[in-house]
Amino acid sequence: MSDALLDPLTPLLERFAATAAERDRQGGTPKTERDALRQSGLLALSIPPELGGLGATWDQTLEAVRRLARVDSSLAHVFGFHHLLLATTQLFGQPAQWRPWLESTARDALFWGNALNPLDRRTLARRHGDAWQVDGQKSFCSGALDSDLLLLSALENDDSGRLLIAVVPTGRAGIQLFDDWDNNGQRQTDSGSARFDGVRVEQQEWLLDPGPLSTPFACLRPLLAQLIFANIFLGLAEGAFAEARRYTTTQARPWFKSTAASASEDPYILRHYGEFWVALESSRLLVERANGAFAQAWQQGTALTPAARGELAVAIATAKVAASRHGLDLASRLFEVGGARATAGALRLDRYWRNLRTQTLHDPVDYKLHELGEWALNDTLPTPSFYS
Amino acid sequence: MSDALLDPLTPLLERFAATAAERDRQGGTPKTERDALRQSGLLALSIPPELGGLGATWDQTLEAVRRLARVDSSLAHVFGFHHLLLATTQLFGQPAQWRPWLESTARDALFWGNALNPLDRRTLARRHGDAWQVDGQKSFCSGALDSDLLLLSALENDDSGRLLIAVVPTGRAGIQLFDDWDNNGQRQTDSGSARFDGVRVEQQEWLLDPGPLSTPFACLRPLLAQLIFANIFLGLAEGAFAEARRYTTTQARPWFKSTAASASEDPYILRHYGEFWVALESSRLLVERANGAFAQAWQQGTALTPAARGELAVAIATAKVAASRHGLDLASRLFEVGGARATAGALRLDRYWRNLRTQTLHDPVDYKLHELGEWALNDTLPTPSFYS
Amino acid sequence: MSDALLDPLTPLLERFAATAAERDRQGGTPKTERDALRQSGLLALSIPPELGGLGATWDQTLEAVRRLARVDSSLAHVFGFHHLLLATTQLFGQPAQWRPWLESTARDALFWGNALNPLDRRTLARRHGDAWQVDGQKSFCSGALDSDLLLLSALENDDSGRLLIAVVPTGRAGIQLFDDWDNNGQRQTDSGSARFDGVRVEQQEWLLDPGPLSTPFACLRPLLAQLIFANIFLGLAEGAFAEARRYTTTQARPWFKSTAASASEDPYILRHYGEFWVALESSRLLVERANGAFAQAWQQGTALTPAARGELAVAIATAKVAASRHGLDLASRLFEVGGARATAGALRLDRYWRNLRTQTLHDPVDYKLHELGEWALNDTLPTPSFYS
Amino acid sequence: MSDALLDPLTPLLERFAATAAERDRQGGTPKTERDALRQSGLLALSIPPELGGLGATWDQTLEAVRRLARVDSSLAHVFGFHHLLLATTQLFGQPAQWRPWLESTARDALFWGNALNPLDRRTLARRHGDAWQVDGQKSFCSGALDSDLLLLSALENDDSGRLLIAVVPTGRAGIQLFDDWDNNGQRQTDSGSARFDGVRVEQQEWLLDPGPLSTPFACLRPLLAQLIFANIFLGLAEGAFAEARRYTTTQARPWFKSTAASASEDPYILRHYGEFWVALESSRLLVERANGAFAQAWQQGTALTPAARGELAVAIATAKVAASRHGLDLASRLFEVGGARATAGALRLDRYWRNLRTQTLHDPVDYKLHELGEWALNDTLPTPSFYS
Repeated sequence: MSDALLDPLTPLLERFAATAAERDRQGGTPKTERDALRQSGLLALSIPPELGGLGATWDQTLEAVRRLARVDSSLAHVFGFHHLLLATTQLFGQPAQWRPWLESTARDALFWGNALNPLDRRTLARRHGDAWQVDGQKSFCSGALDSDLLLLSALENDDSGRLLIAVVPTGRAGIQLFDDWDNNGQRQTDSGSARFDGVRVEQQEWLLDPGPLSTPFACLRPLLAQLIFANIFLGLAEGAFAEARRYTTTQARPWFKSTAASASEDPYILRHYGEFWVALESSRLLVERANGAFAQAWQQGTALTPAARGELAVAIATAKVAASRHGLDLASRLFEVGGARATAGALRLDRYWRNLRTQTLHDPVDYKLHELGEWALNDTLPTPSFYS
Repeated sequence: MSDALLDPLTPLLERFAATAAERDRQGGTPKTERDALRQSGLLALSIPPELGGLGATWDQTLEAVRRLARVDSSLAHVFGFHHLLLATTQLFGQPAQWRPWLESTARDALFWGNALNPLDRRTLARRHGDAWQVDGQKSFCSGALDSDLLLLSALENDDSGRLLIAVVPTGRAGIQLFDDWDNNGQRQTDSGSARFDGVRVEQQEWLLDPGPLSTPFACLRPLLAQLIFANIFLGLAEGAFAEARRYTTTQARPWFKSTAASASEDPYILRHYGEFWVALESSRLLVERANGAFAQAWQQGTALTPAARGELAVAIATAKVAASRHGLDLASRLFEVGGARATAGALRLDRYWRNLRTQTLHDPVDYKLHELGEWALNDTLPTPSFYS
Repeated sequence: MSDALLDPLTPLLERFAATAAERDRQGGTPKTERDALRQSGLLALSIPPELGGLGATWDQTLEAVRRLARVDSSLAHVFGFHHLLLATTQLFGQPAQWRPWLESTARDALFWGNALNPLDRRTLARRHGDAWQVDGQKSFCSGALDSDLLLLSALENDDSGRLLIAVVPTGRAGIQLFDDWDNNGQRQTDSGSARFDGVRVEQQEWLLDPGPLSTPFACLRPLLAQLIFANIFLGLAEGAFAEARRYTTTQARPWFKSTAASASEDPYILRHYGEFWVALESSRLLVERANGAFAQAWQQGTALTPAARGELAVAIATAKVAASRHGLDLASRLFEVGGARATAGALRLDRYWRNLRTQTLHDPVDYKLHELGEWALNDTLPTPSFYS
Repeated sequence: MSDALLDPLTPLLERFAATAAERDRQGGTPKTERDALRQSGLLALSIPPELGGLGATWDQTLEAVRRLARVDSSLAHVFGFHHLLLATTQLFGQPAQWRPWLESTARDALFWGNALNPLDRRTLARRHGDAWQVDGQKSFCSGALDSDLLLLSALENDDSGRLLIAVVPTGRAGIQLFDDWDNNGQRQTDSGSARFDGVRVEQQEWLLDPGPLSTPFACLRPLLAQLIFANIFLGLAEGAFAEARRYTTTQARPWFKSTAASASEDPYILRHYGEFWVALESSRLLVERANGAFAQAWQQGTALTPAARGELAVAIATAKVAASRHGLDLASRLFEVGGARATAGALRLDRYWRNLRTQTLHDPVDYKLHELGEWALNDTLPTPSFYS
């Protein structure tokens, strides 16, 4: 894919690559890079042209995520989630509601952050006349720091306990975002915690029509999230492969017992690369098929059937499992085609494994396999949830 | 793919499936089934319409091989090789030479057999004036028994020792084909030995212009052979999966320690199926991509560049490695989702593993990985040979 | 271990090896070989000297099973089960009851057969005054055909439905044994079905004191069964390794792209053997440790604690899982170090995989791993059953 | 093994464990912990009692390395190498030469550091009359910083270019040790670089009689190094397992789709632990066997035959390959039994993988497998070198 739409990404990739190892060391908010994304216009990538956006299809947007992940999977994550959150408003809300948000996002290069976490039940919303008040805490709020708009979830504080999702300016009174993400990988995703103290939310800020996971089309939301992950995993694997290849061909030495004149000709090193290739190609085809299928499903809008949504879910789960397993294997074995000196701290080549290891835990691969087993054996399509 | 062209295959698949286990036990020549293939018109599947054939593209022909392999991988092999031999004449010879062969094949439903084995150097060709005499022995002559035409190879008995390939009627004087194939798998491929005693070959029966592996286009020949194998491996895996699924859902019982009410709900059985699914889908995409790419390369004819041929070789090798490994794993593990009674002799469910194990040894997966490593690491495309 | 006690086995191993491939083809009862075992005196191997036996410890007896499995895993099975059945009487019954059986077994070289199958609930025992009557059917009766004594199980036909186990002469009226075992592997184990029609069983033929699985010591019975399997798996892997090695060094040819002068020097073939070695050594140490621990537990008799029995169960399950997985891998990959001609039917090298594949399904490895997980994570020892 | 000799280690393990994560973050020299080792008396662990040492056998010393590795594999490395260097003097030198070194080591709790690196050919030794001068650079000098004595290698600057090894005080004029080790793992091993500028070495400081790798007994040196690694890998795996278990049982939550009430009862989590257990037990038996065999070989002294040394090399290589592979797998999968929150930076649970990944690259597992293949297939024992 050589879309002109993605041209603005190319110079950014070079810049981000140059500092990725050092920024992995630092962690924290990649403010410079986030601003560069703002200035590139790519925050409007998935926004329709009539709202001032670039009008990319979803497979193009996912391609951008994957390319970013090759050099910086933290930025890929927050960039992908930015577009996921834009999609969320379109899937859970009405045009009259989301058009202004998308327009202002395109016009002012607004960055969206995530405060939606369905498994964390500590944030509650109470109705007070015309408006609402949100209180509580939340973990794993990726990209919330330095964001302009925030998509947040809360449970309604009544018998229903239903999940509510709103869009608010990140700077609204009562919202505190903590710089407390210091995990093994994905270190610049700012996936820390948030606290809400009497945050006022207007009625029209809630995504109630049709609401979360309410229709097959609305149920594309978790699939897009899963697919962003699959693209990140694949991008990470491709980045690891590129680094491994560069290292083997320029730095590695043949083991003294090897009959090969160079590391690049060693039979065992070649075998590793042969296996890397088969795995990468498998992941690539599975992810690209899923990307294309997602883009098509999006086009169908509310005509999307449960069965079509379910088969897309299967294609995405398949791609995600493969990309997860292949990525982890490659990110660990890259050292076996580099040798002891490839562990040098300055290279931080371990970050591919750390990033994959961290991100692949978002939801368990064991239960993705279970889900795929239900399909393969019993023709049972995945039940929509925020993870399927 | 739901091509009307392949419709004649459907009733055959049912018939072949019904007797596949028993015929696996017997081994030998599947005369009835070979004649059914003759009568179906499918021996003309890849032959251009202007020569009386069905005019299938190569991805359609390979799809037929795969469907056959789901129920009977021996028939898939000889059927695939029949079309490979037809292709060989088109790749190594001139239209004036191969058009009559293709016409008669379509008209008379002739079945082609293989006596080309580049690693077996025991058969020699000597020129005697206008004609030649061929003497020697040959192993692994798949589909030669009960064939109508034979493609045979010999080494020229001069200093060049070059490989020569001819097409002759199977019944020609001096050709002996032995019913001595009794291997663990692919038991009805008749891959036995042959003996040539003073077999006369006319000058115009040799494929000399452009000759074997002489141009990038001619070098499609080994790629088609490799791709037929990949389709057979995939078809075998799909057949094994279908049998496993049928057995688990209708016969298997949950282990007494399982909390599941049925085997189909057991968490470990579901996990196996989830993994089967990921592997199958990977193989399917890789094989289908390679099939499509082969069909396109064929269309290019002599315009095909070495680079394009090389990239096709990589795509095919990738598909073949994946289909080989995934297939073997599935064919062994299918018993773990069936249980002890799935080893009943009448079912002969072990034939999927035996067929895969036998066919995947045609050329070593270790050296396919080596070749892919050369590409992945060093940008070196595979060197054309009869195995790459 | 080079025990003089096992010396009588050596000439048998040679004889059995010479015909193993052919007998695998035939299936059925290995009458000649069973009689050779009778004549060798080895049916008395585990019987105490004071009862006329050879007095082998259990690790010696298991060593004999393993050696047999290297050349013929069907004979290893029925030989191992013969001793398992002798042990069963000692574990579930009283000396006054089992001493005569062991004495006659040693004196007359009686072969014991199995008709105990706890998961098959179709055989019932009804009390009629002083005696009992047994009716019903049973599957998987290994070694019952051509046996002299039969250990059979039945459910008591009352509210208790308790499992009862008796020893009767195989020839007793009403017992029918069917020659209907024709499975993929373990083809000469005669693991077919039985039918009981009004079979009279005397009160003193039942093993009621202490009865099945009644004490920690009695619960050694399933452990011995599991351990016999682990030794069979290991022996099969060792046999496959020996055949692979012989084939590679004497028959295999280096692939034409290999830089090695012989198959034995090919880097990829050496890698396979390196991996075979690590796997074999792992299995060997695990199995040998378990064999030794079992022999010690047996010595403790009724002093054996539940904890000691449980830890032995863990050691045996660990060995069985490892030997099962390593064996299957080796038995499949042996062909990759042999090449295509290693699939020749006369060699029947596929029998290692077929035998392992069949025997390893006795009880699911998935649930052994579950059991080991309970131990590793939660300190929960396996609950005694006929499979743990 | 519950040796009183190792009692002094117990309180150290607790202290080291408490700070291991933080010290992994810091890197650099673990001065406090090195001094604690000095004060514990354990630097004299392997030194014979008659020289003031604790007189531990080698399997006891290796057990200490393994226990240390469970909580801190950097300390395990420098501690193990300290004893390796003491052994080196005994293997390559004469008692008259090494007795004083061992006595002073025991008396003054001297810590030995490594500057022997046979693959780094940049350091040269020139003879100047009675003494020598050493100049050059060296990489991977584990434990050299903060050491009291240094074992260094140099190539003789003459036609022979032979490898020479000497023992000198670390503080000798001309020796510069750089604090430049900042790698992904084993972060407190100080495996940085050294520079030698006109370092004077006395004739009697060279280990010339019998000299490096000069006899089968002398060739135990690389085996001890390899075995120390195997014990470190195993200790790391055991440490990772203990942390995983603690985390799963106290912190992990069952996935919302799990039917289990707690993570500890989830079928897939149990399966992971079952597999961890089989792998750990395999590694344990292989490593413990090798440790015992090494201790026996040491006892044989110069009577050790090449064959006995070779078989020991095979046992050690087998253990190292298994411990390497099993350890890496466990250290990566431990996150799958913990969940996303197990990647929290404060826990630094990724250090097990980083430590294993770094240390297992010392010499390639690919060539260990090659070596084992040579043995398994061709009966060829490993050729002694500094890596075999």
